[in-house]
Amino acid sequence: MTFPVVGMVGGGQLARMSHEAGIPLGIRFRLLSDTPQDSAAQVVRDVVVGDYRDLDTLREFARGCDVITFDHEHVPTEHLRALEADGIPVRPGPDALVHAQDKGVMRARLDAMGIPCPLHRIVRDPGDVAAFASEAARAAGARQDTGDADTGSGPGSGSGSGSAFPVPVVLKTVRGGYDGKGVWVVRSTAEAADPFKAGVPVLAEEKVDFARELAACVVRSPHGQAVAYPVVESIQVDGVCDTVIAPAPALPEQEAVQAQELALRIAGELGVVGHLAVELFETRDGRVLVNELAMRPHNSGHWTQDGAVTSQFANHLRAVLDLPLGDPRPRAEWTVMANVLGGDYPDMYSAYLHCMARDPQLKIHMYGKDVKPGRKVGHVNTYGDDLADVRERAAHAAGYLRGTIPE
Amino acid sequence: MTFPVVGMVGGGQLARMSHEAGIPLGIRFRLLSDTPQDSAAQVVRDVVVGDYRDLDTLREFARGCDVITFDHEHVPTEHLRALEADGIPVRPGPDALVHAQDKGVMRARLDAMGIPCPLHRIVRDPGDVAAFASEAARAAGARQDTGDADTGSGPGSGSGSGSAFPVPVVLKTVRGGYDGKGVWVVRSTAEAADPFKAGVPVLAEEKVDFARELAACVVRSPHGQAVAYPVVESIQVDGVCDTVIAPAPALPEQEAVQAQELALRIAGELGVVGHLAVELFETRDGRVLVNELAMRPHNSGHWTQDGAVTSQFANHLRAVLDLPLGDPRPRAEWTVMANVLGGDYPDMYSAYLHCMARDPQLKIHMYGKDVKPGRKVGHVNTYGDDLADVRERAAHAAGYLRGTIPE
Repeated sequence: MTFPVVGMVGGGQLARMSHEAGIPLGIRFRLLSDTPQDSAAQVVRDVVVGDYRDLDTLREFARGCDVITFDHEHVPTEHLRALEADGIPVRPGPDALVHAQDKGVMRARLDAMGIPCPLHRIVRDPGDVAAFASEAARAAGARQDTGDADTGSGPGSGSGSGSAFPVPVVLKTVRGGYDGKGVWVVRSTAEAADPFKAGVPVLAEEKVDFARELAACVVRSPHGQAVAYPVVESIQVDGVCDTVIAPAPALPEQEAVQAQELALRIAGELGVVGHLAVELFETRDGRVLVNELAMRPHNSGHWTQDGAVTSQFANHLRAVLDLPLGDPRPRAEWTVMANVLGGDYPDMYSAYLHCMARDPQLKIHMYGKDVKPGRKVGHVNTYGDDLADVRERAAHAAGYLRGTIPE
Repeated sequence: MTFPVVGMVGGGQLARMSHEAGIPLGIRFRLLSDTPQDSAAQVVRDVVVGDYRDLDTLREFARGCDVITFDHEHVPTEHLRALEADGIPVRPGPDALVHAQDKGVMRARLDAMGIPCPLHRIVRDPGDVAAFASEAARAAGARQDTGDADTGSGPGSGSGSGSAFPVPVVLKTVRGGYDGKGVWVVRSTAEAADPFKAGVPVLAEEKVDFARELAACVVRSPHGQAVAYPVVESIQVDGVCDTVIAPAPALPEQEAVQAQELALRIAGELGVVGHLAVELFETRDGRVLVNELAMRPHNSGHWTQDGAVTSQFANHLRAVLDLPLGDPRPRAEWTVMANVLGGDYPDMYSAYLHCMARDPQLKIHMYGKDVKPGRKVGHVNTYGDDLADVRERAAHAAGYLRGTIPE
């Protein structure tokens, strides 16, 4: 049989779960992993251990692959172009992927598309940040005064005095951040100094007073077919995803459809191939703003493994292979995903056994990682008709595995 | 983390799908495979290539495993005892497994338990078979005359003349058969000669005039917890499983519960650990007889991958690790599994693409095997509320992949 070989760069849990989804598809899965012990490297037959930052390693890895895709966004754009020049399909391609790699490029592109984003600006030093803070304060004041999100005039509400900002500002390195890393919330010129020390360009964004975070996930294939998953609510704790509820509770149908259309439009205009997660802020004043883009399977889509007809992992693989996409519809009224973070105890096995005994319907997904405090080492999915019950079961299991719930 | 290592002997599709189910469980999976190209060996990290009939190979493989389990029943009993003597848990253990390895031992044990089976006898030559055929004819006649399955007297209905039997007889080698191999239906002394040529003991069984075949699948753990899956209907074509319907249509609740209790009783009394499939005949005169036992994940349980809360593969692994078992209940009203057999065309990929396009809800499970006519190379699962639709979708996909349906 001429079933193709998918090469995935990166040995994390996204690759691990992609391989799991690829087994029934009958495809061959090849992994480029930093170490032989990485989460995915433990479970994949065909593993190349090497550094994705080295072009020769990438080329050697890509030989014999029918397509290259990613567990993370860190492969340098010029290497991806080199692979394409070698004739290897890279999906998503570098021209799309750069929007998930570089927050400055992403913001400029979404601005050009007229897509609502938090107020933002590339800043070069703490003085730039102070000026941005004043502008953000004026914009917030204007919104409060007029109830109109789009007018930029109006009086500033901040104090502007000394080094304290009138409103807090979010600073992000344009490349390399994830899960709260490379992100700072600063309230003064003094606090704004740190982010510039790495020498990476820094993006300033208004600190959005959001009611909640949503995510719209879609999958698009090279021939242009696309599917949209239900819009979910994502609950972050300390900058890390804690819980995802599918679908987002009490989200009006029209807003959900608009968010799906927004994600489909971004996928189409940017030429994304594979899974695209659009992280959104739903503001207290009723706006929806794009927070981040991810062009790979994403934490906000883990619920699909047990809650949708076709998981994000299976559909990502189908997309990068240009196979027809699978049905993204939910199988249960409610599905809740809760991340399992490492706690103080390195051995989770007895807690894991307890969770299985307490809830025979619980779906546990472990990543094979050593436990370190705060590290994502797995997730659980629960589903059913009663949202309160489904949430409680997921939260209990995740908390018990972490060790924060004693019984 | 001290997550355990499960060693599975045999590199077929059952091991492949067990590994798939083991990835989210976070367990380590080790495979003993005949070749590096076997179905499971393509997708598992930790593969030992070797011969399961060689004790040294088995011992080397078992070193570092927390438990040994099986993709097939062919490992010699004395080797399993040797592994146990080495202190390696073997699950199911040799005392249970022998009932799935040796049909003579199985029949004797079920007789002792008073469990209804087809009329049967170990036979040594064609003359024995002729005598058995006469007895089977008398028993069938008695059932017809009285409507009572349990009386063995009454006049024979066969001719008894020459070498032709009054009723056909099923001959099976007591060890080594599967999927119709090692099984013959014979109608005369002349036809009965072949099965004895291998020198393996032969079991004669009445050819049961069944209305349909059912399967009751249960999973049992060492500490005695057990779960029962819904009883399914299994449709065989040319001795090979073609379609499984879950649950068995129009099976009265009481009969379904009796079949589940029968399977649970067999699992308990034989000390089975892991998945047990009890293949059953539902006769036209309303009896249920045990046909075969399998102590491993089984074709009649493949529907659970997409149709049950916990798949047979996940529950088999949980059982052999003595973890609490997962919920066996169905997720859809109807789930249908259809096996994909190889057809005349070695390349299935374009048919596979077509099937995905036609039915975005279709769940395809490919085994990574080369296509050979009649060989099981995958299966499909479909589910939904409308049994006719669910059956049509499964049958179409399986037929199209095989090449027997042109559109």
